Amino acid sequence: MEKAVVLLSGGLDSCTCMAVAKSKGYEVYPISFNYHQRHIIELEGARKIAAYFKVPRHLIIETNMDAIGGSALTDSHIDVPEGDVNRKDVPPTYVPARNMIFLSYAMAYAETLGASHVYIGVNSVDYSGYPDCRPEFIQRFQALADFATTATAVQGKKITIETPLQYLSKGEIVKLGVKLGAPYQFTHSCYKGGEKACGVCDSCKLRLQGFAEAGVKDPIAYETGND
Amino acid sequence: MEKAVVLLSGGLDSCTCMAVAKSKGYEVYPISFNYHQRHIIELEGARKIAAYFKVPRHLIIETNMDAIGGSALTDSHIDVPEGDVNRKDVPPTYVPARNMIFLSYAMAYAETLGASHVYIGVNSVDYSGYPDCRPEFIQRFQALADFATTATAVQGKKITIETPLQYLSKGEIVKLGVKLGAPYQFTHSCYKGGEKACGVCDSCKLRLQGFAEAGVKDPIAYETGND
Repeated sequence: MEKAVVLLSGGLDSCTCMAVAKSKGYEVYPISFNYHQRHIIELEGARKIAAYFKVPRHLIIETNMDAIGGSALTDSHIDVPEGDVNRKDVPPTYVPARNMIFLSYAMAYAETLGASHVYIGVNSVDYSGYPDCRPEFIQRFQALADFATTATAVQGKKITIETPLQYLSKGEIVKLGVKLGAPYQFTHSCYKGGEKACGVCDSCKLRLQGFAEAGVKDPIAYETGND
Repeated sequence: MEKAVVLLSGGLDSCTCMAVAKSKGYEVYPISFNYHQRHIIELEGARKIAAYFKVPRHLIIETNMDAIGGSALTDSHIDVPEGDVNRKDVPPTYVPARNMIFLSYAMAYAETLGASHVYIGVNSVDYSGYPDCRPEFIQRFQALADFATTATAVQGKKITIETPLQYLSKGEIVKLGVKLGAPYQFTHSCYKGGEKACGVCDSCKLRLQGFAEAGVKDPIAYETGND
């Protein structure tokens, strides 16, 4: 069985990616990150999702990205915005070079496992503020990855970056996940990192908007209620 | 004063890069990694080199790359070769995607600092076995970096990857470092990670060959002697 590494934050999009990769028949290897993020609680979601899918191993990388800072998610002095989800600038929740760092670890893991694919839940429709979620970023990452490892640059193997959510709206993502049986009850999207989702940060607003568009009830609990 | 991030392992090449970046007039910000490497002692070298150059800050990233494994440097079950430094295959000391991971962190740090340059001591002359030390890798990393961060992809700033050692022989690197006053007495190159360098691993052999070519005495101590 071919193997796929899946970047699993514990949020809605990465949970959907897990379901997509499973539906394609891959043996799925999730990789998650404790990067000292404000919403470290998302890792509990990641653990539950990994367990739900009965994966052979759930790799958790530990790293002190808060020592670099520069983001509301890794520096407690920068506030999480309560959200204009249609803003066009880069929001303060952008974490410098995060997807480049995470995808590089995923490539290392794919090489060691002999995996042929790496899944990442980037999306450029509903929330295009992050530069490292755009198709051009992924294309250039792929071009780099093809020259960066022994597997790809010397042995001629291909490790393909898959972005099944790239062009879907949040509503379409929810519909896809529901269809594939993604366990959204275990996901955590809120940037504030409380036990219940805040319902007002950018990430919560976008998520609620997605469930509303899909006509599906969000199974997680919100401080603000979700009926 | 313009800022430059320098990838500082604590070895000969990265110490030379520090000296080169300083000689160009940059305010130099070294970044080092505790990735649970066998030769973790190299970090002591990095700390001494950083102190010698009186840097504003020495960032040390901690990360459990040994959880990925796949290398003699992060998996104690894989032996460090005692070396044919002219081998043409990829040696077992290759660490999957290491330079992609390290350069990605350096980009994050450069973005947060507002640095204009990132120095890395890759070299493709004497030891071309590692795929992620080749010029094509660096060119593709640069193409990715230009699209990966808010600074480069949105604000139009350039963060340039500098590889001053790319085409130098080990002997030429030593001559350059000596000319610029690089504190080689603090460097650690041996893959085995003992207090004294072993003198027989690939990294030691290549280093000794470099000092011999340059006609300079290596200031560090070897188990095998170095006269």
